[in-house]
Amino acid sequence: MAQVNENYLNLQGSYLFATIARKVTEYSAAHPEADIIRLGIGDVTLPLVPAVTEAMHKAVDEMGNADTFRGYGPEQGYDFLRQAIVDGDYKPLGIAISIDEVFVSDGAKTDVGNIQELFSEDNVIAITDPVYPVYLDSNVMAGRTGKAVNGIFEKVVYLPTHAENNFSPEFPTEHVDIVYLCSPNNPTGTVLSRARLAEWVAFCKENDIVLMFDSAYEAFISDTDTVRSIYEIEGAREVAIEFRSFSKTAGFTGTRCAYAVVPNEVTAKTKSGERQSLNPLWNRRQCTKFNGVPYIIQRGAEAVYTPEGRKQTGEAIAYYKENARIIKEGLESIGLTVYGGVNAPYIWLKTPGNMTSWELFDLLLEQVQIVSTPGSGFGPCGEGYLRLTAFGSRENTLRAIDRIKTLKF
Amino acid sequence: MAQVNENYLNLQGSYLFATIARKVTEYSAAHPEADIIRLGIGDVTLPLVPAVTEAMHKAVDEMGNADTFRGYGPEQGYDFLRQAIVDGDYKPLGIAISIDEVFVSDGAKTDVGNIQELFSEDNVIAITDPVYPVYLDSNVMAGRTGKAVNGIFEKVVYLPTHAENNFSPEFPTEHVDIVYLCSPNNPTGTVLSRARLAEWVAFCKENDIVLMFDSAYEAFISDTDTVRSIYEIEGAREVAIEFRSFSKTAGFTGTRCAYAVVPNEVTAKTKSGERQSLNPLWNRRQCTKFNGVPYIIQRGAEAVYTPEGRKQTGEAIAYYKENARIIKEGLESIGLTVYGGVNAPYIWLKTPGNMTSWELFDLLLEQVQIVSTPGSGFGPCGEGYLRLTAFGSRENTLRAIDRIKTLKF
Repeated sequence: MAQVNENYLNLQGSYLFATIARKVTEYSAAHPEADIIRLGIGDVTLPLVPAVTEAMHKAVDEMGNADTFRGYGPEQGYDFLRQAIVDGDYKPLGIAISIDEVFVSDGAKTDVGNIQELFSEDNVIAITDPVYPVYLDSNVMAGRTGKAVNGIFEKVVYLPTHAENNFSPEFPTEHVDIVYLCSPNNPTGTVLSRARLAEWVAFCKENDIVLMFDSAYEAFISDTDTVRSIYEIEGAREVAIEFRSFSKTAGFTGTRCAYAVVPNEVTAKTKSGERQSLNPLWNRRQCTKFNGVPYIIQRGAEAVYTPEGRKQTGEAIAYYKENARIIKEGLESIGLTVYGGVNAPYIWLKTPGNMTSWELFDLLLEQVQIVSTPGSGFGPCGEGYLRLTAFGSRENTLRAIDRIKTLKF
Repeated sequence: MAQVNENYLNLQGSYLFATIARKVTEYSAAHPEADIIRLGIGDVTLPLVPAVTEAMHKAVDEMGNADTFRGYGPEQGYDFLRQAIVDGDYKPLGIAISIDEVFVSDGAKTDVGNIQELFSEDNVIAITDPVYPVYLDSNVMAGRTGKAVNGIFEKVVYLPTHAENNFSPEFPTEHVDIVYLCSPNNPTGTVLSRARLAEWVAFCKENDIVLMFDSAYEAFISDTDTVRSIYEIEGAREVAIEFRSFSKTAGFTGTRCAYAVVPNEVTAKTKSGERQSLNPLWNRRQCTKFNGVPYIIQRGAEAVYTPEGRKQTGEAIAYYKENARIIKEGLESIGLTVYGGVNAPYIWLKTPGNMTSWELFDLLLEQVQIVSTPGSGFGPCGEGYLRLTAFGSRENTLRAIDRIKTLKF
């Protein structure tokens, strides 16, 4: 009889957003007149920009015409998009990436979830705490984490990040094989400095660790003391795989396009001790289990790199960044302690007066009808924090801050 | 140090299409004037129908407007498409499927590649020989097959299908946990009868086997003696997962939309012997590692179910089926033995005079400039066969047959 993958049964229920949804629904039912403002989920609200929709209309027409119709495309993405990525995202940073190192996909979530397939089950992974849950869950499903006791997986190395270490995790003291870092960070909205990332790359090189670098929020960086790509750090091509997405950069959360960069130099060991380049393994994985991103969507993504696309998506990013500034400065003006919000669309609020994350969540919902995300939902070290997002409308962002200012903590 | 997934190293090189491409390139270089007709790859050539492109244009406009913009959609697909699938593909067959059993995805290849994740490593899989390679390769990568000796994986149960058993495989005599069946079949173009599929469902039920049923080519069925969906067979809801795609039904090979049906009754066993429904496991898998199909694409797929969409895609299918008839009858008229081509876009030609698959491939390329696919590339039992596809233009299909008729075998 077929046997299930028991590792799936070790997954912790994804209670966070379900619990939030339930609380909001209950509150709405009890207060049908309530004007609720949602600053909880990290989803964009501005429409696709004209450069993108024009390119997609054109591509739809091409697909409807026998002379220009396209069937199966390359699993790795069309060269026009891979080249646009190389030229648009890396060349300006002085980074040489070849197009066969760029793999276009339907989402950074998909890529960070699937990348662990390239590694044997006994690799030890390190993740920050708090963390974007997919890094962990995809490894739980693959049997790499063992079981959870009180929410902590026995074989996972957790790297606490909180105000006390300036949201810059220490190196693991135990043996690890794979490290996941996200900068600008979801959920804390903070960035790792260029100097610290250089130390991380050196540490990974010294210890033969593969670094999974999630830079899905790089478009929000204003700071010059951090990097937009891990490959700005010397030696990173030997240790790092980078994940990027059009989701937050160009409002593609419902349009689905992203990419992973797997440099030819990144290796892992075979049992017999040889070094195996990960690029051909990822290529094989994608060719076997994926058939590429829709042509229409790839043309839309390509348009992000045109002068108009750059300008228009840049305006959207600036809009969200201004929201972030409004939230950050508004909260600070009433004496609250906040992190993030400068190089990221997330604001990480320290709960006042030793409130728990959920206590502050409840207070914001019940007293000022604002939906947030409790930091504890991202890991134990998120306790005592709350995440607010800058993806709302300007009007709602301003109203939300006005409401919070009426509160007495 | 990070260790690679050694199972990837057990994969057999995907030499088939690479070798075909090399041979065609070499021939072209040596004969630059050659007018080559490609009937090798199973990719559609007719453009998307107007009903689909109109729906996609409308969706692009919605995505460009703040009032109608959509961010993250449900990982399982929008209800509008899931409902259209239930109402359009299953209700007319008298099959009750609930929308939470339908999971929209970016491709049947993706789904059949990923589904094995739900099972433990020690499940035994059975595949037909010849076979669509993704069923096998995805299990090789997961470590479920052992190593290959002369192309045969030690832990896989192969079910030979050839003219001698009327392309209807015998039941496995060894213990198996998971069986993959594809009907209408790629590559043989044949179908399993309704009666035989009923026996398969009964066999799977009796032996607690999960049946992976790939019906990506159901739109090509004319025969009333087979089924369009495995759920036409009583009891199939307890054992079968069905994979379907818009790729061949609506020309979506470059547009990417498909779906899997995972009925609530399909179960596998946990180590402690309990039955675990696979539907919530697949839901968890998709929610963790996938973020849904682009809204624009889902609206395009939905339009396939409108009266205009039905009519227009039906005409495209009829066009390809007429090509298949032309190929089949053309080859038969010169005394060749062919299978398939009635309920599928594939024609499975028996090589004349004990030629090998590659010998006939070379002969067709060199003497009449036609690209085909050698049957042996799909498995040892494909030796002595050749696959031709009906997805070319009418003109090329007619010219190809005229050319083949000039050959003396």
